[in-house]
Amino acid sequence: MSFIEVPKDSHFPIENLPFGVFSVKDHSVLRPCVAIGEYVLDLSKITHLFDDEMVNEEFAKKLFQQPNLNSFIDQSPQVWHVVRTILQKLLSKDNSVLRDNSKLRSECFHLQNSVQMHVPVQIGDYTDFYSSKEHATNVGKMFRDENNALLPNWLHLPVAYHGRASSIVVSGTDLYRPCGQSKADNEKEPKFGPSKLLDFELEMAFIIGNRGNKQGEPISVKDAEKYIFGMVLMNDWSARDIQKWEYVPLGPFLSKNFGTTISPWIVTMEALKPFKTKNVEQIPKPFPYLQHDDDFNFDINLNVFIDPKTSNQRNLITKTNFKYMYWTMKQQLVHHSITGCNIRTGDLLGSGTISGSSPDSFGSFLELCWKGTKPIKLSNGETRTFVQDHDSIILTGYCVKDNIKIGFGESVGKILPAKINF
Amino acid sequence: MSFIEVPKDSHFPIENLPFGVFSVKDHSVLRPCVAIGEYVLDLSKITHLFDDEMVNEEFAKKLFQQPNLNSFIDQSPQVWHVVRTILQKLLSKDNSVLRDNSKLRSECFHLQNSVQMHVPVQIGDYTDFYSSKEHATNVGKMFRDENNALLPNWLHLPVAYHGRASSIVVSGTDLYRPCGQSKADNEKEPKFGPSKLLDFELEMAFIIGNRGNKQGEPISVKDAEKYIFGMVLMNDWSARDIQKWEYVPLGPFLSKNFGTTISPWIVTMEALKPFKTKNVEQIPKPFPYLQHDDDFNFDINLNVFIDPKTSNQRNLITKTNFKYMYWTMKQQLVHHSITGCNIRTGDLLGSGTISGSSPDSFGSFLELCWKGTKPIKLSNGETRTFVQDHDSIILTGYCVKDNIKIGFGESVGKILPAKINF
Repeated sequence: MSFIEVPKDSHFPIENLPFGVFSVKDHSVLRPCVAIGEYVLDLSKITHLFDDEMVNEEFAKKLFQQPNLNSFIDQSPQVWHVVRTILQKLLSKDNSVLRDNSKLRSECFHLQNSVQMHVPVQIGDYTDFYSSKEHATNVGKMFRDENNALLPNWLHLPVAYHGRASSIVVSGTDLYRPCGQSKADNEKEPKFGPSKLLDFELEMAFIIGNRGNKQGEPISVKDAEKYIFGMVLMNDWSARDIQKWEYVPLGPFLSKNFGTTISPWIVTMEALKPFKTKNVEQIPKPFPYLQHDDDFNFDINLNVFIDPKTSNQRNLITKTNFKYMYWTMKQQLVHHSITGCNIRTGDLLGSGTISGSSPDSFGSFLELCWKGTKPIKLSNGETRTFVQDHDSIILTGYCVKDNIKIGFGESVGKILPAKINF
Repeated sequence: MSFIEVPKDSHFPIENLPFGVFSVKDHSVLRPCVAIGEYVLDLSKITHLFDDEMVNEEFAKKLFQQPNLNSFIDQSPQVWHVVRTILQKLLSKDNSVLRDNSKLRSECFHLQNSVQMHVPVQIGDYTDFYSSKEHATNVGKMFRDENNALLPNWLHLPVAYHGRASSIVVSGTDLYRPCGQSKADNEKEPKFGPSKLLDFELEMAFIIGNRGNKQGEPISVKDAEKYIFGMVLMNDWSARDIQKWEYVPLGPFLSKNFGTTISPWIVTMEALKPFKTKNVEQIPKPFPYLQHDDDFNFDINLNVFIDPKTSNQRNLITKTNFKYMYWTMKQQLVHHSITGCNIRTGDLLGSGTISGSSPDSFGSFLELCWKGTKPIKLSNGETRTFVQDHDSIILTGYCVKDNIKIGFGESVGKILPAKINF
């Protein structure tokens, strides 16, 4: 228990301590923090309280007097563990060091709703996988072949593509509806204008630490875990009409590069450990380089809400779970590096859209409304088949076990009308 | 003319002055430089000679006492121009400031063959286009339909995909043959092992400067030129067998992420200006956002050599020209940002494989040897259909007009045997 009161339903008890980057009022000085209850704890202000052999004050300054988390997550999992342990100790009810120092407390704690959160790491490369069998099957049914929905490679390797790192934004950032080319099946020529089929994609992503691997030296499946620092929620906004016209033969490009929203909090793999669950059975057995027997799947409840432009009411539109993912994060990472590709600290690897098996657990409007044929009714009487201007999409994620709840907070994104009339 | 003697066939007369980053002996201190004849000029050592209103000593220090060129190319084209003009003045025969200061000369000039060159910019995102009509047609004929080789979108937009930034290496860096999954048409199951169909791709790429654009604010075609700092040679190594199996439906991933080789020298658009040539005619006319009447194509001769493992003899295997590109760099950049995607200083945008119309001007083994059916004979008696272990692939590029030759130097890459036996 912490001396900081943690509301009953909070995602941020002392067992969680997710890492983020915040600034007060203006954006001028960014610094690392952890979430505890309704507060952020400014790590740059408590470096003098680090007195561990492995992480002393001087080292803590190098890690936390920084505008992002890269210096910290570039360290080894032992350092991650020591830092977490020190923070849990400092925040615990029984420890007077911080608890009874009201001056320091007033300097290092801020209410979360009073600060600005930022993208927590400098992301070098962003890769997006396609690892939900249900999602890949749904898309295959809609666009290819009802009876052979999965492409032949899908069960043999975690399909992925390289995404756009520059346009990854933190929760709360508004995005403009993108313009682009599209062509409907019944039209002869392409058109240009604002996307009409703008979609969300419910995803999670993991962030690489521990220096990554050297180019030419693939990460083995037994080593993979030690490069995975933690996870975030991610909304991989997708313009379906732009995507359909542009994506052959080299994959999605503009349809996904105008913005990708992530949650501000990175929940560490150490905090997620109690929520490990069985891997999904893989038939056929993958190649040996992808095989691992230990469970590396996680029971994370995921909800998606839409808050439409005409009301301030959240409508739950999807309820699913991360545990439905077919390929594990270890397999994704190992596959990514098998050619010798170097993965660096700060790289972001997305899961792909996470869909469950029932129609109310699908992770995109495309699937929920089955290509626009099954509109969703909202509480204000409106319907949706895709995202409309001024709609906000809210992702949440949390784990519960033995009366402990830890979560990711929210990833919120609002779509503004297309900015430029061409 | 420069007081530094420039050999007759050099790519680096005073009219060129391409920018790069080098280190002496060990790699510990990297610093910006320009090439002049057989020398590099260390810009960090001559910042006190900058006395322009726009670029004085203090500002020059901020630009050039850096481990990469990002601070410099982040500036406006006016600054790029002023720096180039100052350097041309300092290097000219008539100027005694540097010419007659033998102490300074010994500190700031190094023979190119005595220094180590580095990737000259910190690359945020790397995008690869597919803008040679001849290349896209060749690939379409081989893998799709002889009579409908170009896909329907190709003439309407510059097709592209997001590439991998982490594994971009500078000329002279050896790469290991990648391992991965592949499946031959006549086989039922995929195999795992070293790629057997390893290919080069002759490309050029341009580098973004001038701060790029803000997210949500597309770059207009009339503004595009001012974000393009300069160009490099690029070899987009491709494992064709891995690519074929993995690339549906999301595009190339592992097949291209193990390494991409660029030349160390960025030739500025200002140096390339005299070599502008007519754009390729575009039918149908593209959408207005992609239209520009001014010529923005460049007459750059491109050669590819292979130096096989058993000899030290370069074999010319391709002779083509950048001017065959269908989409211009301005169109590529404008299209890339049309959704609001933000392009940043240091981003690298590749042309895609550059093929001419005749079979000896194709930009890859895939096309030159037509899917392995037409082996190329080398001077040592061997043949090639793809790259073998210990082969070096050498790209060169240069422009000639009115007795002035400026060039890109070389981009060299050697393939070592696959490192790990799985």
